[in-house]
Amino acid sequence: MNSSPIGVFDSGVGGLTVFKAMEHALPGETLVYLGDTARVPYGTKSAETVVRYSLEAAHFLLRQKVKMLVVACNSASSVALEVVEREVGLPVLGVIEPGARRAAELSQRGRIGIIGTRGTVGSGAYAKAIHELRPGAEVLSQPCPLFVPLAEEGWTENEIAQRVAETYLAPFKRAEVDTLVLGCTHYPLLSGVIAEVMGPDVRLVDSAESVAAEVRQLLNENAKLAADRRESSPAHRFFVTDVPEPFQIVAERFLGREVESLVQARIEGE
Amino acid sequence: MNSSPIGVFDSGVGGLTVFKAMEHALPGETLVYLGDTARVPYGTKSAETVVRYSLEAAHFLLRQKVKMLVVACNSASSVALEVVEREVGLPVLGVIEPGARRAAELSQRGRIGIIGTRGTVGSGAYAKAIHELRPGAEVLSQPCPLFVPLAEEGWTENEIAQRVAETYLAPFKRAEVDTLVLGCTHYPLLSGVIAEVMGPDVRLVDSAESVAAEVRQLLNENAKLAADRRESSPAHRFFVTDVPEPFQIVAERFLGREVESLVQARIEGE
Repeated sequence: MNSSPIGVFDSGVGGLTVFKAMEHALPGETLVYLGDTARVPYGTKSAETVVRYSLEAAHFLLRQKVKMLVVACNSASSVALEVVEREVGLPVLGVIEPGARRAAELSQRGRIGIIGTRGTVGSGAYAKAIHELRPGAEVLSQPCPLFVPLAEEGWTENEIAQRVAETYLAPFKRAEVDTLVLGCTHYPLLSGVIAEVMGPDVRLVDSAESVAAEVRQLLNENAKLAADRRESSPAHRFFVTDVPEPFQIVAERFLGREVESLVQARIEGE
Repeated sequence: MNSSPIGVFDSGVGGLTVFKAMEHALPGETLVYLGDTARVPYGTKSAETVVRYSLEAAHFLLRQKVKMLVVACNSASSVALEVVEREVGLPVLGVIEPGARRAAELSQRGRIGIIGTRGTVGSGAYAKAIHELRPGAEVLSQPCPLFVPLAEEGWTENEIAQRVAETYLAPFKRAEVDTLVLGCTHYPLLSGVIAEVMGPDVRLVDSAESVAAEVRQLLNENAKLAADRRESSPAHRFFVTDVPEPFQIVAERFLGREVESLVQARIEGE
């Protein structure tokens, strides 16, 4: 048993999808979430810069005495996982491996599509992970830079979202993929229109739930699960690098309850 | 005469529109451009964070021995101008005042629209500047968060750009504005579709040229213009905070020539 918290880190609000899945799958665990809202997004930046930011975030969470780290950001997971694990000396889980594993399991004909930011797609991390699990798979990738601003604007079901999705997803339809990985934590907000464009035979993979299941398994194997607390909820904490208000509004809407412990932090130079 | 360079600062590549107009209007001046590409964009971030980043950028340019500073970013100009001027002790010109002045001059019926990032529109800086110049003007503002990613994706003339522009600009058409300020340095890339939606009677204001003209006037008044060099081009320098390659590609395409002196810099904590 280990009642230390689990650190969850993202460039902004997107990682809350992973936070929510973890909260549900791991009711006894206390979570510490860090959103680097002063430097968001990561998906348009270089691997060098994303690695630097990820290390600063990891060191900040290390000071919060976390027992393990979840990198809930695809762009950071795709370039910074190894160096973060080496530097912090804690178990570190990203979102790429669990998503790739799920896609490799689900896909019937081994034709798998990946959508994500330019950083994630450019890294080739999903294709590499899928090929290790399923060497014969055909993997096709496409960055979809407009999906994040569409999701943030709340334009998730209108005609513009439909047209953007048709444009980005056309190569996947032509290639007849049977599985599509939503390789950016914002994309599940657009899953309605993505599913409509891809049709009912294509499976969509959102790694949030796979990540939560793998965290549970990892802690279990290492006898580090916290005791289940049935009576009181764990006191999760949230940190952001820009002012808290905009994050608080989004987080409360998304989690469906008040977010009480939310503090602005400086992580540069950590 | 003063042959020291002029500092030009933006959150990323957008300020190159201002750089280009200055290069043309001020052929004898040497320019030092700083793009904060590791933290771009500013328009989605709080005033507090944008002020902090702007001060770091200004201090970095001060160390390059500039004689004045041009804040070529609407989001930074709208919240950080006064504090930057106070801190660096040099003449500082933003893009809001020149754009507001041009709009106030051009508008026939005093119905002026402002489009920009959430940060710029939320600050109310354009409306304030226009009302000081033309107290009776009616000013209507609207953030257009999808315009920057559309411009960066190169989707400036397709049906999606058309639909997005129709959606954002509908309130301005209903209000029958006669002048529309493109209050973000990326937006001129979409001026074709914006002009088409607004119709031939609406004047579009891009502040880049107004800024260049005001810089020339300011230096002239203070006897700080550099001597015109007709034979050799000034040795402009470029700095970025993320890796140089992506900036170099965009800058060379936009400026139509090689960008030689481009260096990655750390400005945090300046």
